[in-house]
Amino acid sequence: MGIREDELVRKIGASMRQGSGVPAQVLLGIGDDAALFRPRPGYELILTCDWFLEGTHFLRDKHPPDSVGWKCLARAVSDIAAMGGIPRCFLLSLAVRSSDTGRWLDEFLTGLRRASRKFQCVLAGGDTTRSNEILINVTVVGEVRRGRAILRSGARAGDIVFVSGRLGEAELGLQILKRNKRDANSKDSRLKKHLYPEPRIALGRWLAEKGLATSMMDVSDGLSTDLPRLCAASGVGARVNATKIPALLIPSHGGLRGTDPLQLALHGGDDYELIFTVRPNRMKSFPRSFGGVPLTPIGVITSKRQMVLVNADGHERRLESAGWDPFREP
Amino acid sequence: MGIREDELVRKIGASMRQGSGVPAQVLLGIGDDAALFRPRPGYELILTCDWFLEGTHFLRDKHPPDSVGWKCLARAVSDIAAMGGIPRCFLLSLAVRSSDTGRWLDEFLTGLRRASRKFQCVLAGGDTTRSNEILINVTVVGEVRRGRAILRSGARAGDIVFVSGRLGEAELGLQILKRNKRDANSKDSRLKKHLYPEPRIALGRWLAEKGLATSMMDVSDGLSTDLPRLCAASGVGARVNATKIPALLIPSHGGLRGTDPLQLALHGGDDYELIFTVRPNRMKSFPRSFGGVPLTPIGVITSKRQMVLVNADGHERRLESAGWDPFREP
Repeated sequence: MGIREDELVRKIGASMRQGSGVPAQVLLGIGDDAALFRPRPGYELILTCDWFLEGTHFLRDKHPPDSVGWKCLARAVSDIAAMGGIPRCFLLSLAVRSSDTGRWLDEFLTGLRRASRKFQCVLAGGDTTRSNEILINVTVVGEVRRGRAILRSGARAGDIVFVSGRLGEAELGLQILKRNKRDANSKDSRLKKHLYPEPRIALGRWLAEKGLATSMMDVSDGLSTDLPRLCAASGVGARVNATKIPALLIPSHGGLRGTDPLQLALHGGDDYELIFTVRPNRMKSFPRSFGGVPLTPIGVITSKRQMVLVNADGHERRLESAGWDPFREP
Repeated sequence: MGIREDELVRKIGASMRQGSGVPAQVLLGIGDDAALFRPRPGYELILTCDWFLEGTHFLRDKHPPDSVGWKCLARAVSDIAAMGGIPRCFLLSLAVRSSDTGRWLDEFLTGLRRASRKFQCVLAGGDTTRSNEILINVTVVGEVRRGRAILRSGARAGDIVFVSGRLGEAELGLQILKRNKRDANSKDSRLKKHLYPEPRIALGRWLAEKGLATSMMDVSDGLSTDLPRLCAASGVGARVNATKIPALLIPSHGGLRGTDPLQLALHGGDDYELIFTVRPNRMKSFPRSFGGVPLTPIGVITSKRQMVLVNADGHERRLESAGWDPFREP
């Protein structure tokens, strides 16, 4: 027996409402033609949407459904964090097989609900349909105080390039997951950042409210792909010190000895850390961590529009963009 | 040679900007992590998103790409119209084969640009990725004066049920299109409403600003499916007169003699007309057209939660919901 679309919408609505209140700004949630949202005076809205597709962004037989639920929202919320905003509500577009409307959907909604509470971003509406593969698209609406959003385009020569957290951890998790013959053990701590990434909402908001960063974006496709995007938007280049990049310590056991932490950090996607730039005159008092998350200066913005990587021996080479691009042939 | 994601984004942005200005409310369009939108004081935002998928919502070999571009936006804008709002900007999520990034994409963008201008709804951002089938999701942000949105839930017993335009025309167009052996002739006037529907923005806005309708929604899945949704949201039922429904006149030539206009009008989807309810004391002065679009009273809201269809001979029967449901087996 198949499910009807109206039942599916009711199921999603009921699951997401469990034990949570809808904030006063969301006047009308699921069940009408569209959602109604009341903006706060003095704030601008941040709008973003993100694909999360079976086969492209996750694997039906490798990724636990609750991770799919968590991550589809976390990815989109990360774009709000990357502007210095806070998420307010989201729209869920979901296309599934009829056979996935039972257990898979329940677990998916559990992960989505956890993420929704953690990020304080409520479900306001969406669209559902049937498909032979699971298709997800999430739109998030965020807010930022008028004029406070941090854009990609504000970096100037001499600014210091910072990155939050560690890079490459999510890519390592993906590699471990792909090598596993069995299902993912979602308790394996090495998989945590790949399965349940945490967008840097508090950090982005702090940088925006204090006016500390001249430009910002999130690292979703890998540093070597995303930093050039920030530089292109600003009309500048960057020189990055390979030894400064906060890469992982790869343990010598566990069959990962062939893995190069620097390559993971440069080209691995899905970290959802923030890259941002800071004026050199702010460096003296600039903290090296925020809420337990390390903030690491990794290089400098240059007026020459080139991406340069400085190795440990001082040798400079061009930083080739080799991060995630869905259109690149494998 | 494949296209890179950054090139695809540039191509979309360049096409959509051709000869059009971005309104002051959209502060930052394509090219950053997210879009920035400045709400007008005294207005609420309307948020909606809509799937438009190859194989489910359109056929790659039957639907002209410019119709796909037009219709993916028109469908979502219709949800804004159905609340009495006006569209302001949209996000385009597009997943395509590499081989569709040439001519197909160009024609798609031509249709999308035409719709964007017609509806005064600008592209503010989106997401792109690769897929083996064309996947489209459109998010539209609209505005409505605070407290003026017309919901599905406001219908009361005794209210008169109105419908705009004619019903069944889009379904007839789909049937003609499917029967055609050759490509669609997009100049065939019988296909116009199926290929290039026009959401009733001006009508919805007028009803909202004048406070004329107690409830409203758009007919996207067919009257027999959508009217029960409005009634369920309002906790009421409806009695509809079959003879009053503004159905089509089917010409006796052209191989469509077996087609029943009433069945098309009751169960055909994709019309994007508006259903709305009006207090009986307003009926005397209520116009029977708006901007050339007929406004037809087709029935009455009842306190008994049933959907009843009254035939020409006065016989009453239950109105069975038989419109579009993606989860219904064909």
